[in-house]
Amino acid sequence: SYIWLRDHCREERSFHPQTKQRLIDTFKIPSDYRPSAARTTEEGLYVTWPESAFESSYESFFPWSFLAEHAYNPPLLRTKDLPSPLEQKVLWTKEIAKDVPTVTYEEVMESEEGVYEWLKRIDAYGFSFVSGIPGTPEATEALIRRIAFIRETHYGGFWDFTANLEHGDLAYSDVRLEGHTDTTYFTDPCGLQLFHLLSPDHTHLGGHNLLIDGFRAASVFRTQHPSFYDLLSTLPIPSHASGSGSASLPSGVHMRPLRRFPVFNHDENGELVMVRWNGDDRGVVGGEAFEGKTMDEWYEALRTWEGILRSDEAQLWTKFEVGTAVIFDNLRVLHGRSSYTGTRRLCGAYVNGDDYRSRLRGLQKQFGEDPRRKALQELLKSRFGVAFVGKGKGGAWEDY
Amino acid sequence: SYIWLRDHCREERSFHPQTKQRLIDTFKIPSDYRPSAARTTEEGLYVTWPESAFESSYESFFPWSFLAEHAYNPPLLRTKDLPSPLEQKVLWTKEIAKDVPTVTYEEVMESEEGVYEWLKRIDAYGFSFVSGIPGTPEATEALIRRIAFIRETHYGGFWDFTANLEHGDLAYSDVRLEGHTDTTYFTDPCGLQLFHLLSPDHTHLGGHNLLIDGFRAASVFRTQHPSFYDLLSTLPIPSHASGSGSASLPSGVHMRPLRRFPVFNHDENGELVMVRWNGDDRGVVGGEAFEGKTMDEWYEALRTWEGILRSDEAQLWTKFEVGTAVIFDNLRVLHGRSSYTGTRRLCGAYVNGDDYRSRLRGLQKQFGEDPRRKALQELLKSRFGVAFVGKGKGGAWEDY
Repeated sequence: SYIWLRDHCREERSFHPQTKQRLIDTFKIPSDYRPSAARTTEEGLYVTWPESAFESSYESFFPWSFLAEHAYNPPLLRTKDLPSPLEQKVLWTKEIAKDVPTVTYEEVMESEEGVYEWLKRIDAYGFSFVSGIPGTPEATEALIRRIAFIRETHYGGFWDFTANLEHGDLAYSDVRLEGHTDTTYFTDPCGLQLFHLLSPDHTHLGGHNLLIDGFRAASVFRTQHPSFYDLLSTLPIPSHASGSGSASLPSGVHMRPLRRFPVFNHDENGELVMVRWNGDDRGVVGGEAFEGKTMDEWYEALRTWEGILRSDEAQLWTKFEVGTAVIFDNLRVLHGRSSYTGTRRLCGAYVNGDDYRSRLRGLQKQFGEDPRRKALQELLKSRFGVAFVGKGKGGAWEDY
Repeated sequence: SYIWLRDHCREERSFHPQTKQRLIDTFKIPSDYRPSAARTTEEGLYVTWPESAFESSYESFFPWSFLAEHAYNPPLLRTKDLPSPLEQKVLWTKEIAKDVPTVTYEEVMESEEGVYEWLKRIDAYGFSFVSGIPGTPEATEALIRRIAFIRETHYGGFWDFTANLEHGDLAYSDVRLEGHTDTTYFTDPCGLQLFHLLSPDHTHLGGHNLLIDGFRAASVFRTQHPSFYDLLSTLPIPSHASGSGSASLPSGVHMRPLRRFPVFNHDENGELVMVRWNGDDRGVVGGEAFEGKTMDEWYEALRTWEGILRSDEAQLWTKFEVGTAVIFDNLRVLHGRSSYTGTRRLCGAYVNGDDYRSRLRGLQKQFGEDPRRKALQELLKSRFGVAFVGKGKGGAWEDY
């Protein structure tokens, strides 16, 4: 379509080189708009548009790499030509205990490269430890803010919390919690969560920290039980938070996502991008939602999935220690805890997934490589003989 | 399924009456679990489970209304038996200018009922004005916090902003902006947005405020162009924010949602729940995304949709005034502005959609009626002769 060409012109009068925003009013392009001429150079394709009511004569520019990546009739490059995002993750079992991903507080606080090393580990493994943290909430809060601002929820922002038996609410008690992801009742569940123990470790017994690689568990489940995986990928489950309210929501907590989501959530290419799983916050499945499905099959699928999560090999148990925080990607890694006795003081915070991923992309551009971007670059070069146009005319366009 | 029954027991040992959380470990219920007895009362159904490895003998309780609502084989009640959420909205054209939804600052600040009156208008119309606000950022911030805490983004939290021609960035300039929704590049776009003019209105000319009812526009579009509506409901569009960064994201802004979303987003019942539309932040559509689709058809669909948005009858233009704020639901109402000259000072903030809807539900429970809930109540009574069990055994269970 000629409109597609004009709409996607990479020339800086049509496409802002810094903000990468479209600067033309697409819907004023005449339906019968057609180029009057075209020429090619080493850099790319130049297309001339005739004088019209829309604009005076204009020349558009398209880098070859842009056309190679985005051409659609026929498509020159398909998503499946690139390594899948999942292939770049390190899927792990409890064996990872032998060599847990770790960075030091010092390196994260002292340089952007240190933050990049940290986020690389979270990206690859879904979690990372940070050692050598001063045992104060202030130091912990400064640490998490190295990634991005804190996500406020109805629970507040940065939290610093002592749970003991005197408080009656079971959700904040000392009981064992099975592996789950947090905030399944938000439209966009919290992306990262950090925990740090502040009180000396000898004041409580138990309360160990459980992490499970949800992407590995999903991969095992998909291979062994494809029809169950399919059921849990398509059947939307209600979830909710319902409580007595907070300072910011005085009329009570009546939280549920904008729409129901399944356990396994995929992107437009069919890639797994989020595991949403919290048995306790599950709402009522029933009514017409189950027409044509067997309730028994659904429970059997859930039981099988939960069995993988509870298998010994899936579960990484670690002891909370003062000075060592754990951070994990709540869209991939499930967490839980064993029961404990005594008191303890934990602090922590959430970061939005969007902001975390934006930070990671920025650091990849600055210090490293996005492996998929690199694979794309190599493919464009080997298959079409074109290189990315990073700077200059048409601008850096890797970002949208 | 007997497991469904045991899993959904409303007795308070299985289901926490305050937090509405499940208190049993569903996955330890034996596959062959079966009740040994059942009895009925005026209130509901009691089911007795035999002694087992899972638990000692136990009696479950289910209010009749719960079973009427959630029974699935056969379903007793279908979503289509209830008025659709869209039917409870007031869809509007520019004619609403004659009587715009408004509340006063005083009533919102002084009572929870005032907040409820405000949120009822936002719920019904997708926007509301608030008059009589002191002309300070502090008063404006206190106003928005009556709904919930402010959503922080990479732009910050509460903002207080003067744009003038000396700043080069087009996004913060004085040019006309066509109707759009904000933050299409977030996985969960901002739910509510509030604007309040702080500088005297004679210091600038133009800069009027445009609001468009996206749900009405979608409804017109769906009726007149069903296949275009379908295309824009299913074809996911990339969107992004790409900029030079901020204090909280020093490595730059590289924002995009977890997955691509279409323009029209529906829930599990096929109800329209979100319009996502911002032509400037649209990324590149192409590559394999368009296999089997016609690019020309897509542009024609977009042009037709944009034509409805730009039609005179769709557009409500109002003048910003010191002391009167406008707040709108960014998932439904598109906003824009005319170009202006001179300088002006605007302040405002975002609130999460989840938190806004939670606040509305809480106030409905306290002071009013959720119309759908009320319709459900009437249906249960007339069709099955059962009333909601609001309190007492089984607890208030309306909330999940």
